[in-house]
Amino acid sequence: MASRKTSKSKEPVILITNDDGVTAPGIRNLAEAVKDLGKIVVVAPDKPQSGMGHAITIGQPLRLHSVNFMEGIEAWGCSGTPVDCVKLAVDKVLHRKPDICLSGINHGANHSINVIYSGTMSAAVEAAIESIPSIGFSLLDYSVEADFTAARKYVRLLTEKMLKTSLDKHTILNVNIPAVADELIKGMRLCRQAYAKYDEDFIERHDPHNRKYYWLTGEFKNMDTGKDTDVWALKNNYVSVVPVQFDLTNYVLKSKLEKKWKLT
Amino acid sequence: MASRKTSKSKEPVILITNDDGVTAPGIRNLAEAVKDLGKIVVVAPDKPQSGMGHAITIGQPLRLHSVNFMEGIEAWGCSGTPVDCVKLAVDKVLHRKPDICLSGINHGANHSINVIYSGTMSAAVEAAIESIPSIGFSLLDYSVEADFTAARKYVRLLTEKMLKTSLDKHTILNVNIPAVADELIKGMRLCRQAYAKYDEDFIERHDPHNRKYYWLTGEFKNMDTGKDTDVWALKNNYVSVVPVQFDLTNYVLKSKLEKKWKLT
Repeated sequence: MASRKTSKSKEPVILITNDDGVTAPGIRNLAEAVKDLGKIVVVAPDKPQSGMGHAITIGQPLRLHSVNFMEGIEAWGCSGTPVDCVKLAVDKVLHRKPDICLSGINHGANHSINVIYSGTMSAAVEAAIESIPSIGFSLLDYSVEADFTAARKYVRLLTEKMLKTSLDKHTILNVNIPAVADELIKGMRLCRQAYAKYDEDFIERHDPHNRKYYWLTGEFKNMDTGKDTDVWALKNNYVSVVPVQFDLTNYVLKSKLEKKWKLT
Repeated sequence: MASRKTSKSKEPVILITNDDGVTAPGIRNLAEAVKDLGKIVVVAPDKPQSGMGHAITIGQPLRLHSVNFMEGIEAWGCSGTPVDCVKLAVDKVLHRKPDICLSGINHGANHSINVIYSGTMSAAVEAAIESIPSIGFSLLDYSVEADFTAARKYVRLLTEKMLKTSLDKHTILNVNIPAVADELIKGMRLCRQAYAKYDEDFIERHDPHNRKYYWLTGEFKNMDTGKDTDVWALKNNYVSVVPVQFDLTNYVLKSKLEKKWKLT
């Protein structure tokens, strides 16, 4: 595991994780894009963990196993969730906080409400809770053979910007990259999270013993007509950048209820 | 499953779920507290799902099985996460949106950062995403034999308030009840989510084959000295009520980056 000595080096320590698993092309493309910007350590799930949200493993112990990832990069597969990976990386692999945490590149969109379901984004949120600035990256292409060329460019650009800028240690960026060729991308836009959700439609089937079971499916619906949202930006071939926070307090509703319900 | 006819009744439909599982004392106490306020339908995990956050089940199908819960109450155990329960309840059990969703009563605190890890609160958040006002309730007592007397009182009080008040359909309340006798509780306070977190300390062990494994443990640390937080309220024997939202956009950071990084 990473020697404690590394913490004395001036080279930034970059923790990389994801939710598609340590063998996914997306995480390799992420590491490839930033490998000369610091000391890279990868701790990522040893199997796909999409849709795990901010789940942590309480009732089971966790395993870490060394992975042959890329020349010169220390990498570990972890039996837990993306959030477990960040926690274990800090406590048992790095023995310190990294300077930045990068999560992804996710195979598929994490715009709008997906930020809440996404293991990729939850890993980034976990890092920021632990005072590690973080960025989650997602490419709007589910394919294993997706072209990450444009994504790598923006990963590098934003990671360099983040490393150079003195930002709050709780900073989290949710970055989505449209699935088009680099030359068609118009640039980056700072956005808010669109109000868009899935209309669930569970598919009902019967097993060989005639008992019902259900597959989660759904149709994505954007109810938000704003031009300042991530969904709008992506539709218009911009890279969307949404600053994210983990304080879920609804301050507007808090003020309203203070008057309406006479609670203080 | 609930007949489509119920949707025509004027009696409010109350969906109840939790993360400790359908057999936990907490969910029975919740149902007990509100059973005469409307038509109650319970859809809850068939096993404990604490710490599951906003996880959803993508790679596996889900099962629903009828549960003998309480006289006159339709109840289902679901093989998935708390968020799956809400989705399945709306699409396949109720065939409509309930008027309100109540989650809990959780065995253990869900104040401060726990709102993000908690299956109980994630179920409430999921309901609000689906335009169903919701409340998550938690008692600061992990014991299976916890005394829910005071908790039941506040569950009823807040549920009645919520049903009577015309609130935004995305309203979510995170309610925590101190583990003290009812007469010691000083009332309810509207709070913000405290900045408090766990300092992880994984316990390292070796299996019989001399391979390492890790148990997640940690110490809870409150870094927030504000007297308007849920942690403060609970320490001072108030029931904490935090209005919660699912728009994670950090608007303050968005404005800062617009200037600093010249992104629009």
